[in-house]
Amino acid sequence: MAKVPVGTNLDGWLDAYADRTGQLSVSEVRALFAVVSRPEVVSLAGGMPYVKALPQELLVKSFNMMMRDRGNLAMQYSGGQGDETLRDQIRELMALEGIRSSVEDITLTTGSQHGLELVAGLFLNAGDVVLAEGPSYVGALGIFKHYQAEISHIHTDDDGISPEALSTRIASLRRAGKKIKFLYLVPNFANPSGVTLSKARRAKVLEICRQNHILVLEDNPYGLLYFDKPTPNALRSLDEDGVIYFGSFSKILVPGFRVGYVLAPPAIRQKLVLAQESAILCPSAFSQMMISEYLANSDWQAQISTFRSVYKERRDAALAAMKQHLPKLSTTKPGGGFYLWVKLPEGIDSKAMLPVAVKNLVAYTPGTAFYGDGTGQDFLRICYSYPTPEDIRVGISRLASVINLQTELLDTFATTTNRGK
Amino acid sequence: MAKVPVGTNLDGWLDAYADRTGQLSVSEVRALFAVVSRPEVVSLAGGMPYVKALPQELLVKSFNMMMRDRGNLAMQYSGGQGDETLRDQIRELMALEGIRSSVEDITLTTGSQHGLELVAGLFLNAGDVVLAEGPSYVGALGIFKHYQAEISHIHTDDDGISPEALSTRIASLRRAGKKIKFLYLVPNFANPSGVTLSKARRAKVLEICRQNHILVLEDNPYGLLYFDKPTPNALRSLDEDGVIYFGSFSKILVPGFRVGYVLAPPAIRQKLVLAQESAILCPSAFSQMMISEYLANSDWQAQISTFRSVYKERRDAALAAMKQHLPKLSTTKPGGGFYLWVKLPEGIDSKAMLPVAVKNLVAYTPGTAFYGDGTGQDFLRICYSYPTPEDIRVGISRLASVINLQTELLDTFATTTNRGK
Repeated sequence: MAKVPVGTNLDGWLDAYADRTGQLSVSEVRALFAVVSRPEVVSLAGGMPYVKALPQELLVKSFNMMMRDRGNLAMQYSGGQGDETLRDQIRELMALEGIRSSVEDITLTTGSQHGLELVAGLFLNAGDVVLAEGPSYVGALGIFKHYQAEISHIHTDDDGISPEALSTRIASLRRAGKKIKFLYLVPNFANPSGVTLSKARRAKVLEICRQNHILVLEDNPYGLLYFDKPTPNALRSLDEDGVIYFGSFSKILVPGFRVGYVLAPPAIRQKLVLAQESAILCPSAFSQMMISEYLANSDWQAQISTFRSVYKERRDAALAAMKQHLPKLSTTKPGGGFYLWVKLPEGIDSKAMLPVAVKNLVAYTPGTAFYGDGTGQDFLRICYSYPTPEDIRVGISRLASVINLQTELLDTFATTTNRGK
Repeated sequence: MAKVPVGTNLDGWLDAYADRTGQLSVSEVRALFAVVSRPEVVSLAGGMPYVKALPQELLVKSFNMMMRDRGNLAMQYSGGQGDETLRDQIRELMALEGIRSSVEDITLTTGSQHGLELVAGLFLNAGDVVLAEGPSYVGALGIFKHYQAEISHIHTDDDGISPEALSTRIASLRRAGKKIKFLYLVPNFANPSGVTLSKARRAKVLEICRQNHILVLEDNPYGLLYFDKPTPNALRSLDEDGVIYFGSFSKILVPGFRVGYVLAPPAIRQKLVLAQESAILCPSAFSQMMISEYLANSDWQAQISTFRSVYKERRDAALAAMKQHLPKLSTTKPGGGFYLWVKLPEGIDSKAMLPVAVKNLVAYTPGTAFYGDGTGQDFLRICYSYPTPEDIRVGISRLASVINLQTELLDTFATTTNRGK
């Protein structure tokens, strides 16, 4: 992430900002939005769902039902915890991943991002440590940094975060006198790696966190978007007191409503609702009721199946194109979700290469976005959810040209350098 | 406000909360929502607009236009600053109060409450001071306290905040070594007092803040809801660098969309957008585009006139009922907005009296909610925006019985006590 100067000489309020404001930075992912909008560029960057796969009639039906039955409530202020009918429907959604919950313990939020922001605010003092996968979701890292927390990445492989590495790191941080508040995880089809935490590791990770009194933040926007087989049950299904679970409608319905949800132990949930009321009074009743009507009156499970098919076809297109055009590079093989994580040939810096790629009409997200410590230059993220399979093929073929050219340049440079010696 | 214990013995995470979490409290206003919902109680508490005064057809038309023209954009993630079309339309809205602005300097937020939260986060360190009217909006006080700021109330009369008292207070706080960050104001038909800052005082207040390098937060949800004559031009129209302006669609359209806006100087706006992206990624495109279509295709100025008539009738009903049933009590005489501020007879505590009032089927908001320092017991707020004029008359007549009974009890007690001496 590129630090933005807290103020310039043109800013008359330069001396007035809070300490935390120095942590605000422009994420590479967000800065790419401008690039994405140019039609000639194939963007493998974004992270956006393919909303055209949702028939608009379904939303029209939801709107009409809502205005007829609950129009005046949808237009009004509502409770700080969110609509009770929708919270009850969410119980059914979470049960698909083995979670037992009560309506009282669910809080609706402005996207799961805001849930994460509010929970971070409840717990993080400056200098606290948050443990995270390496790589980890850029949006979560931004929140933790904004609260002046330190991020400590734990070694992660094709089965997710490593329990052994987790134990070792906790011990060394404790020896250094650090206060560890959270383990933050995207256990299913992680952003950006695409990997899933194995069933065997889930129990181990929970046991380690329980023993060390560390709260687990389970962020699960992609769990229901599996391609081959369902994911292991949620971590929350194995531990009700030590896990705060974050869900979202952005990927299984649409992101435009900004509705997510948090399932938290009662004492934490009580404070979460107060923090939400302080921050926004209440989440949008209109958005919540649109979703509630949709869940009540449409075959939402069939719609999730449709999304699965769409994204599976795109994952297949991406993997096939990688095999064809960049056979020497290793990538993760996601069983669901939106992302491939690609290891670059040694010596290539994904951040430095990005402008060259955009000049060649393809965009991706550099690996550095997903580390809080400045590493990740030798990786990049490909998001296959938004472009069509044909665009994915074109995009990856362009990416291959760029990478191959960089490799040639590196080889030439190495040869020249050797000759010079 | 009643402090909520940060944790109990039942909370296994009691030791893990952040310092700021100790500031979270249940606001009296929010706690009253449960009472409001009982149909036999006349609630003069709420603060809710009368959304039934908006013809639902207008929203149906907006929805249909939006889905036809921008459906896929409405469903998708959007930019962190908000929809550019809506931002441009908001320029026209603000121009009604004398404000000149550019599209680039406007940021859309999840209600103006979240704008206030984000701006507070940019500036407030623990121990900073925020100056506010006395009384002041409970939701803003909650935000400032959450950031561990100290609130200093400035004497306020029927012409708004007193420039002399402001000067004196700033000087004494400076002498005590305090860092003053904001003056927070609701200059038009303030919540809870209903008073409007006079034109002459606006210039003086701005000059004092400029000289003392204090940012002015101008929170203006009610300005267009005047009954007799338009309000003086906004403070922002007189000072572009020293004022952050907060606007809202909650009172001139509906609150259910949760859409507000912030007009800030460029350097601050840049950081505000980053803070918003960190907190929620982006505000709801769906909500924003519904409002944008409404402004484009409906006679929104005529609708605001309708709201004015509805609320004027209710204000008149409230003042007439006060004169009839409680002629000895002094109240403010609001020229717009939602609220009357009532001074109680000496010795009556509005917070202690509330349960008696609810038992007598009328609810109000105790004055203590609107002070950050525990004072305000001898005041209460009446909100006349939501109940019908007939309900207002019934509610105030019930309130009169409760107050008169309390006064009699006090007199009897005083007499008895005197006799005992």
